[in-house]
Amino acid sequence: MSGTAPTFVEAALGGDRRALARLLSAVENGTAEGAEALRALYPRTGEAHIVGITGAPGAGKSTLVGKLAREFRRRGKRLAIVAVDPTSPYSGGALLGDRLRMRDLLTDDGVFIRSMASRGHPGGVAAATRDVANVLDAVGYPLILVETVGAGQAQVEIARLAHTVVLVEAPGMGDEIQALKAGLMEIADIIVVNKADNPAARITLQSIRAALGRDRSAGHHGAAPSAKDEEAAGWDIPILQSSAIENRGLAELADAIEAHRAYLQRSGAWENRRRRLARADVEAWLQRHLLALLERRLGGGAVEEAVEAVQRRRLDPITAAGTLLDALLRAEGER
Amino acid sequence: MSGTAPTFVEAALGGDRRALARLLSAVENGTAEGAEALRALYPRTGEAHIVGITGAPGAGKSTLVGKLAREFRRRGKRLAIVAVDPTSPYSGGALLGDRLRMRDLLTDDGVFIRSMASRGHPGGVAAATRDVANVLDAVGYPLILVETVGAGQAQVEIARLAHTVVLVEAPGMGDEIQALKAGLMEIADIIVVNKADNPAARITLQSIRAALGRDRSAGHHGAAPSAKDEEAAGWDIPILQSSAIENRGLAELADAIEAHRAYLQRSGAWENRRRRLARADVEAWLQRHLLALLERRLGGGAVEEAVEAVQRRRLDPITAAGTLLDALLRAEGER
Repeated sequence: MSGTAPTFVEAALGGDRRALARLLSAVENGTAEGAEALRALYPRTGEAHIVGITGAPGAGKSTLVGKLAREFRRRGKRLAIVAVDPTSPYSGGALLGDRLRMRDLLTDDGVFIRSMASRGHPGGVAAATRDVANVLDAVGYPLILVETVGAGQAQVEIARLAHTVVLVEAPGMGDEIQALKAGLMEIADIIVVNKADNPAARITLQSIRAALGRDRSAGHHGAAPSAKDEEAAGWDIPILQSSAIENRGLAELADAIEAHRAYLQRSGAWENRRRRLARADVEAWLQRHLLALLERRLGGGAVEEAVEAVQRRRLDPITAAGTLLDALLRAEGER
Repeated sequence: MSGTAPTFVEAALGGDRRALARLLSAVENGTAEGAEALRALYPRTGEAHIVGITGAPGAGKSTLVGKLAREFRRRGKRLAIVAVDPTSPYSGGALLGDRLRMRDLLTDDGVFIRSMASRGHPGGVAAATRDVANVLDAVGYPLILVETVGAGQAQVEIARLAHTVVLVEAPGMGDEIQALKAGLMEIADIIVVNKADNPAARITLQSIRAALGRDRSAGHHGAAPSAKDEEAAGWDIPILQSSAIENRGLAELADAIEAHRAYLQRSGAWENRRRRLARADVEAWLQRHLLALLERRLGGGAVEEAVEAVQRRRLDPITAAGTLLDALLRAEGER
């Protein structure tokens, strides 16, 4: 089995889309073949610009992502789309209509579209998304759009895996925007009010500006200082409008995404994020290796027994985990 | 410092709310005192019914949670509310108006309200939420309402920490509901269309019924079979209406939540979920112990050096993590 992995890796590196799809499945499912491929590919990663596109259901993210992909293709950029959103038309809950509208992307060799299975990721969906993005990065997609749903705390983990986070809002949420302030500031590098063809978009835009402390006199393209983290101190969050259906605002959004990448590289924040991603990768693999090692050295039943004891409240998880680690170290000392 | 922990634990167990608040901060921040308290309290956990309340921003979750809490109080039930949602009025992005509306809950000794800080959780927000819920469980709250935002894949991790997941929808999402099908089925045990005072609620309700394959002739209180997982095979997802502002539908929602708990216990699914939660707790603590142990045995720089090498692509994270583990085992063998 492991003998076939290099072939797949080489084929995927050579542009074989079917090999790439199979490789991504192996990686997503956490197989040994997938791990071997990740190991081989990792030195080639770190160049892609990973852009998270997030927002509430109904904001029109999927259509916007499709149109944005076309805009980047017009600019000659190759890109991958990863849909982590279970409501995405690319994924399980597919709408035939949307699929048809995306057909030109599906047949474009410069675009690779991948839906994440919505369950069955041994290390969690965020870690699996990271692995998938690493493979797409390694095989040479310089831009990866990761579409997720939601705008709250639970998104932060996936957002942490992106260099740039685009928050998509839709008209009609005026009253709620003030409450969203904390969430917005936490994750967004760029905010776009989609469905700008709707007359209510103007109100939503004003609410967001007010929520971010943007003075109206700053004009349509002024920007608010980001409170995201120290590294983002020099970036003012652009607040844009788009109408994916009317093809409006797409060039401005693509410009803002490219400007954010340039800002990250100029300010040194790009390296900070690479460091954070490297740490996330190391910690994820420490956990996977440790669980495998416990199985191998202590027998398959040891972890199960600890879980059972915790379930029955005969043991607390802090002691149970400590005992497992101690047993592993003792077994090693006796070898 | 550690000598004071039992005092706080005892005070919190005795009903001292200030001690409980301080204990929760220690646990949330991952301090040694917090770990010691969790260890002491764990045997008392496992009895509380943990209910996740989730939905898109603007669905009126916070008001609904407040009204639902009052309904349970009328039934004589003590409960805790944990707000993981950064848009919640309980948390950082607080709306004064909502706080005032909640004032009676804030002064009710039978209700404990806790906002999770939106950052700074060493093991991730899901693990921190789990720790906080364990403490509230141990000190004797039989019902814990965990409010989170969003309805997509990223919610699944927090949803996995709950016994019952209530998905709150709002009117005006008719067109999008079909696309939401996959997400809905994945996480919801109960669906409630809030803001039922809005005339559009009827359309939203019909769309959800259609999306879940519910025949209209099944009537208002028919239910759709859940596709969530095997264990839920015997549970039909109730689709309810509520108007938190008009105090409508709250008793029905509380009934559905109690019915779901009864179903879980009757079917054996309660024990399955206890097992899943025990496993999550053990794995979270394995990771925390391992990182501390690596620091202690290999020196503080060892993990940093590995992260640096991965960041520079001199090493892949699979090899880096494996090397760290090997070094730890070797150091142990030489002791």
